[in-house]
Amino acid sequence: MGAGVIGSSWTALFLAHGLRVSVWDPRADVERMVCDSVRQAAPALKALGLPTANLARKLRFEHELEGAVEGADVVQESATEDLALKQELFARIGQTAGPGSLLLSSSSSFPATDISKGMSAPSRMLIGHPYNPPHLLPLVEVVPGERTDPPAVADAVAFYKALGKVPLVLRKDVPGFVINRLQAAFFRECVHLVREGVVTVEELDSIVTNAMGIRWAAAGPFLSFHAGGGPGGLRHFLEHIGPAFERLWKVLGEPKFDPRTVGLLSAQAEQAFGKMSYDELQKTRDRKQLAIMNALRRC
Amino acid sequence: MGAGVIGSSWTALFLAHGLRVSVWDPRADVERMVCDSVRQAAPALKALGLPTANLARKLRFEHELEGAVEGADVVQESATEDLALKQELFARIGQTAGPGSLLLSSSSSFPATDISKGMSAPSRMLIGHPYNPPHLLPLVEVVPGERTDPPAVADAVAFYKALGKVPLVLRKDVPGFVINRLQAAFFRECVHLVREGVVTVEELDSIVTNAMGIRWAAAGPFLSFHAGGGPGGLRHFLEHIGPAFERLWKVLGEPKFDPRTVGLLSAQAEQAFGKMSYDELQKTRDRKQLAIMNALRRC
Repeated sequence: MGAGVIGSSWTALFLAHGLRVSVWDPRADVERMVCDSVRQAAPALKALGLPTANLARKLRFEHELEGAVEGADVVQESATEDLALKQELFARIGQTAGPGSLLLSSSSSFPATDISKGMSAPSRMLIGHPYNPPHLLPLVEVVPGERTDPPAVADAVAFYKALGKVPLVLRKDVPGFVINRLQAAFFRECVHLVREGVVTVEELDSIVTNAMGIRWAAAGPFLSFHAGGGPGGLRHFLEHIGPAFERLWKVLGEPKFDPRTVGLLSAQAEQAFGKMSYDELQKTRDRKQLAIMNALRRC
Repeated sequence: MGAGVIGSSWTALFLAHGLRVSVWDPRADVERMVCDSVRQAAPALKALGLPTANLARKLRFEHELEGAVEGADVVQESATEDLALKQELFARIGQTAGPGSLLLSSSSSFPATDISKGMSAPSRMLIGHPYNPPHLLPLVEVVPGERTDPPAVADAVAFYKALGKVPLVLRKDVPGFVINRLQAAFFRECVHLVREGVVTVEELDSIVTNAMGIRWAAAGPFLSFHAGGGPGGLRHFLEHIGPAFERLWKVLGEPKFDPRTVGLLSAQAEQAFGKMSYDELQKTRDRKQLAIMNALRRC
């Protein structure tokens, strides 16, 4: 259901776990696009320890949405981030899906309550928002809507766990869920520091990969600061360093993506990363991410 | 010069690189504390490929600051984060150090211009702010003050590079430098989301380690979004996703470290991480960080 970057990556993961996958996407070149993506994902899936021979054996393409939904145990919608489109898709999905089907949306921003508005039976519809690329990175934000039944949440968690993912159920529905809010907060200051000329785009990235990136792949911010607080833990840390954080909070930047800022960031990014093709960038990123994941698994 | 957590970790790194180190710290148990830290750092240094036999052979303790500074090629001050104290120390360091000595402060927040206020010859004094633990994590923020001479900056970069570090010279001096501003921006939203009951401390950490931690250890935020923008790169990404970021920027939280917040975060941290001793927490963190760094080196 929607076979762009996210949908194709989900498809590759589902296939590597032996699931039968029916893809529907109205775009003309969907078959070529998905098959290319599945092929590109195969080495990463293999490195994760999954079988990758004949991945496309259980892959089918449907010409109509209804054909893909009929008889499916799970629907993972991954269409463009457009609320009206997703509402229309789920109204149609709801009419065709069996009563036991789990209806998941990869939406990164719209609440299940809004997406399911046109559904007469939305009790098994909820958000399963992956972190890109879904076939590789573990986290999936699971966010029920107001009309989602608790068993559907448990089923979604079980489904993603069976795929080797780390599903995390949010206790409240907030705009941007957790991941995009954290990224937005972090990226805002990144943009500010480059715009102010403190560092370049490339220098900022180097700071992140050589400092907090390594730390936050090993331990989250709370555990890191808990350990940083010595035997007194997070309480000691906050009592000591809290005021310094509060002082910095007052002076953090509040940039906008005006043309000057977008131009500056884009020009620096093109200068720094432009030598590598899109394909190389993806491959390098995935190779490194895999190496980290596998190193941590052995730890 | 100051042998707390940071000073001891620097000491271990310097010794592993064969440098002669003279430590001065007025606390009574300095010798035991530093020797313990050096011993604890040894396995990590070894895993980084450094020699660790007889690490303490070139280690000396001095009873007076002047004894440690006299004849030193490099001074790495790592005292408590207290401006008046650092000013007093550098006034004394400046009187004793030879004209060619490089005078570095591990300060995480005070500008070199302020710290060197009482020095008559501050041209070789600047900030070398490491990311904790300095013997392990690569990044060092190098920040000259208004009166620092450019050759001293080049010497600091060369010094840290020779130690296997990744020194990064900031182009402007801003409060919190880069690392602490980025951490403050990120942590503010972490605190907000826990305070609002969207996730617990432990769940937030799990989101970070299973999503952006892995990504940001592999590629910084700009390269990640440049790759996420497809063949159109960062420009395409910002033109498409920029407005969604701007909407989230408007709704990010603005918590304070009031007693209720500190209490809530600390209680959750103690429940989640309290089973592990401080020593175990550090060892686990460092083992994972090392595994990541070594995996990326082979990549």
